[in-house]
Amino acid sequence: MDRPNILDEGSSQRRQTVAPETESLFNVRNFAAAAHYAVERLAGMLSRDDVEGVHLQRPADLMASARSLMTPADLDGFDAARFADILELYLETCIKVNSRGYMGRQFSSVIPVTAVFEMVAAMAPQPASYYEAGQLANIADRLIEEVFGRFIGWPPASFEMVTTSGASLANMTAALVARNRYVSGSWNGGLAAGRSTRPAIAIGQDAHFSVSRIAGIIGIGQDQVIRLPLNGRRQICLERAAVTLDAAAAQGLDIFCLIASAGTTATGANDPLPELAALAKRCGAWLHVDAAHNGAFLVSDRLRPRLAGLELADSFCLDAHKALFLPALCTLLFYREKGLAETAFPQKDSYVFDPFEDEMTAVQSGVKNFECTKRPAILNLWLAWSLYGRRAFADKLEHLVMMTEAAHDYLADQPDFIVPYRPESNILCFVHRPLGVYGNRLSGLQLELRNRVRAGGRYLLSKVDLDGQTMLRIVLMNHRIGQIDIEGIVAEIRRHAREILENNATQREQNRPIRLQPQE
Amino acid sequence: MDRPNILDEGSSQRRQTVAPETESLFNVRNFAAAAHYAVERLAGMLSRDDVEGVHLQRPADLMASARSLMTPADLDGFDAARFADILELYLETCIKVNSRGYMGRQFSSVIPVTAVFEMVAAMAPQPASYYEAGQLANIADRLIEEVFGRFIGWPPASFEMVTTSGASLANMTAALVARNRYVSGSWNGGLAAGRSTRPAIAIGQDAHFSVSRIAGIIGIGQDQVIRLPLNGRRQICLERAAVTLDAAAAQGLDIFCLIASAGTTATGANDPLPELAALAKRCGAWLHVDAAHNGAFLVSDRLRPRLAGLELADSFCLDAHKALFLPALCTLLFYREKGLAETAFPQKDSYVFDPFEDEMTAVQSGVKNFECTKRPAILNLWLAWSLYGRRAFADKLEHLVMMTEAAHDYLADQPDFIVPYRPESNILCFVHRPLGVYGNRLSGLQLELRNRVRAGGRYLLSKVDLDGQTMLRIVLMNHRIGQIDIEGIVAEIRRHAREILENNATQREQNRPIRLQPQE
Repeated sequence: MDRPNILDEGSSQRRQTVAPETESLFNVRNFAAAAHYAVERLAGMLSRDDVEGVHLQRPADLMASARSLMTPADLDGFDAARFADILELYLETCIKVNSRGYMGRQFSSVIPVTAVFEMVAAMAPQPASYYEAGQLANIADRLIEEVFGRFIGWPPASFEMVTTSGASLANMTAALVARNRYVSGSWNGGLAAGRSTRPAIAIGQDAHFSVSRIAGIIGIGQDQVIRLPLNGRRQICLERAAVTLDAAAAQGLDIFCLIASAGTTATGANDPLPELAALAKRCGAWLHVDAAHNGAFLVSDRLRPRLAGLELADSFCLDAHKALFLPALCTLLFYREKGLAETAFPQKDSYVFDPFEDEMTAVQSGVKNFECTKRPAILNLWLAWSLYGRRAFADKLEHLVMMTEAAHDYLADQPDFIVPYRPESNILCFVHRPLGVYGNRLSGLQLELRNRVRAGGRYLLSKVDLDGQTMLRIVLMNHRIGQIDIEGIVAEIRRHAREILENNATQREQNRPIRLQPQE
Repeated sequence: MDRPNILDEGSSQRRQTVAPETESLFNVRNFAAAAHYAVERLAGMLSRDDVEGVHLQRPADLMASARSLMTPADLDGFDAARFADILELYLETCIKVNSRGYMGRQFSSVIPVTAVFEMVAAMAPQPASYYEAGQLANIADRLIEEVFGRFIGWPPASFEMVTTSGASLANMTAALVARNRYVSGSWNGGLAAGRSTRPAIAIGQDAHFSVSRIAGIIGIGQDQVIRLPLNGRRQICLERAAVTLDAAAAQGLDIFCLIASAGTTATGANDPLPELAALAKRCGAWLHVDAAHNGAFLVSDRLRPRLAGLELADSFCLDAHKALFLPALCTLLFYREKGLAETAFPQKDSYVFDPFEDEMTAVQSGVKNFECTKRPAILNLWLAWSLYGRRAFADKLEHLVMMTEAAHDYLADQPDFIVPYRPESNILCFVHRPLGVYGNRLSGLQLELRNRVRAGGRYLLSKVDLDGQTMLRIVLMNHRIGQIDIEGIVAEIRRHAREILENNATQREQNRPIRLQPQE
């Protein structure tokens, strides 16, 4: 090694030679070459019309392929071939959200220009907690807040919005504001301070798992989660919810927070918000709405009425990385009353925050966030909104909801499919029931169908368990999905079901146990 | 409008026309054009050698510029000129992490190829909570876990690693594991369940604000945070810490978790880990180390010894988006004992997780994470590691630490600078003390200097308050920073100080109050 041992030199005039490895790491020409290559590769991917869901590899096989790309390179500098190999392995193992075959979950193909902006924001960051470090990011927060405030119908400057890295964090943050407000002294004193009642949180039975575990995280305890019963459309059932809440109160539980859903993950159901707002008011509880999925309906004149009552919530969140088609994560958390955001984490530290508030610190999000280093994800929304306007978002979303209704109607017409819930969103649950399959075997069959369809690689769907029944579930996030694809996945499901049942019949003849375990 | 009203048609054979606005949103040629343009613009930015920190704009002015870009476009389709305008406004308002003038905080210029991969991952996501959805992301977790396990010295397969979106989340997650383990029944019963002692968390006085507020979040309460005193190097002082812990125990506090720092945000100090591990053991407490900043030392043979004792921690985290130069956020959270990760959130929901564990679900991170939709940030680390190897990271990091020591020595030689702490990392705090300035005026002067240097646009530094004294702080994240830049910022500080003092002298003559408020 011919470089001087820089750390061992004693003088203050030490040499500042930068290692050639470091310069190679930051070489501009290599960056441009890799970037242009990746752009062309991605453009090629977007131009294809293959129907594919995911190509599953066994973990051990993939581990071996990935490991082989980690052998130390002997080359000086950037190995373009290795970069290309890694890119291929990555794209090969992705869910194919840009294909019509992907109907798996709420992951969307993103508006492509926002992917470009992810590269820009990585290279030239605007960490958004401080105005100084994220000037445009903090301004974009305010501009998007205005836009959505108009959709909600809240008077300007009466409410506030913060952005968070995901709805799990937004839901917890809102619950903390509620806890700090209603469970007196809980921020400083903790939950152990002598209380006559036990604080509790009420949620719908289909609430997202990030919601159902908040009580465990923030010290309330999972035993103090009241699960509100659902009606036939899998919305919180008002009559039975009121009874449940009264019973809980009679047992000494103090329900300080009610969390409703606008778009449950399982079925996309919207809880009855105006009535729940009244119920929360009667209990003296905070109403938070997890609108991670359907909150995007705000941008559509046609779909917005489905969110009636959202304006009565004390807080709600929506994921722009779901039905607004942005890269993950970009969640908007709204508080009906301005000034509440900074009560989630009522504590400041001097090296972060300035002693005097000025016009700059006044617009920064720092004290309102869980995050310290915070990605400026809001810029993707502001960028796409500025370039394309509301209409582009609304059109795509309306199209997806329409397609899902069409898929519902089509499946409902098939004698061997059960479609228990009319979709309120772009999520559809159904059961394939071939003649003669009932009970537990029906649930086992759906899981096996999910596995086989997934393994086939052409389509990807998910499964969900509702009241003990496993169902199949599709989420239409891609506007190019059409009737032909719905028919395609139905044909694939039927074909796999026939194979499974024939196989089982053979196994029964041979007196072997029925195989309903997952397979690759 | 000549498109059919797709939502109002009743038939299951509805038309599936996609609105032209939607097709325009996803147009491939526009993507490629925008991307190639952005790559060239970024390459140009990287090639420049301007010395600049940040160009601050007043929020009202920036709001006006940004708003003007939001006027609805009349154009059909993508407006390349507007995209370029937005890109310019964004780059103009960024902190200049790629310049030698930026010494503000722990934000780094990123390894450029990882910025490219951010674009790829946005366009073709691998949400990492499920193996199905993030195959390579979950495998990369395991491969990076192996690499770092060797550096730590933990036996293979005896420990485990999860990745999180930032150290705030990692620190809270580790504290939850400790709480769930030592505060019996706290996940289900909550903290209010009758207890004879009050659970408490001990932290160093310079702990990061994400650490100091964990108790408030998880139901322990801020009053149950024990702040351990520091020694002259701003490390936790062992002798006084033991006294403080004993006194707390005598008051009925049950310290179940001790959180140490390896690289405090303020000064980069490393707490004495072997001794703290012994102390935690004696108290029956969990030891978590917030190594967000200095954890990266693990990759360097020269710097690793500074982390001695880290292997004794029950858990620790490190931010790859700090001293491993990756895009934010990418935090690695390590548990010394395998199997503990899933005790942070001991709850499962069926629509997320499969009923049977198989080889695929066995490697997925879902049940171990706070996040549901989780960015596959680990892939940036795996990619850069595979392309460049350990040495490239270690070289840059060693260079930064050496430069910071050189800056320390240089400043210590200046009669008008006080450099109270020898740097253990790439963070350096100092005070500029012109003749005749003392006490409160000295603190006020540092804040004013931070503001004026920042407003000048050539350099960016930060300020920190330690024991009531405001200090200036530089963080050297850019390997191109050299002695010339340290001399440059010193000259700038002196020039501003002279102006401030001359101005104050004039004001005193005119009997006006001294102006030490922030200015733009």
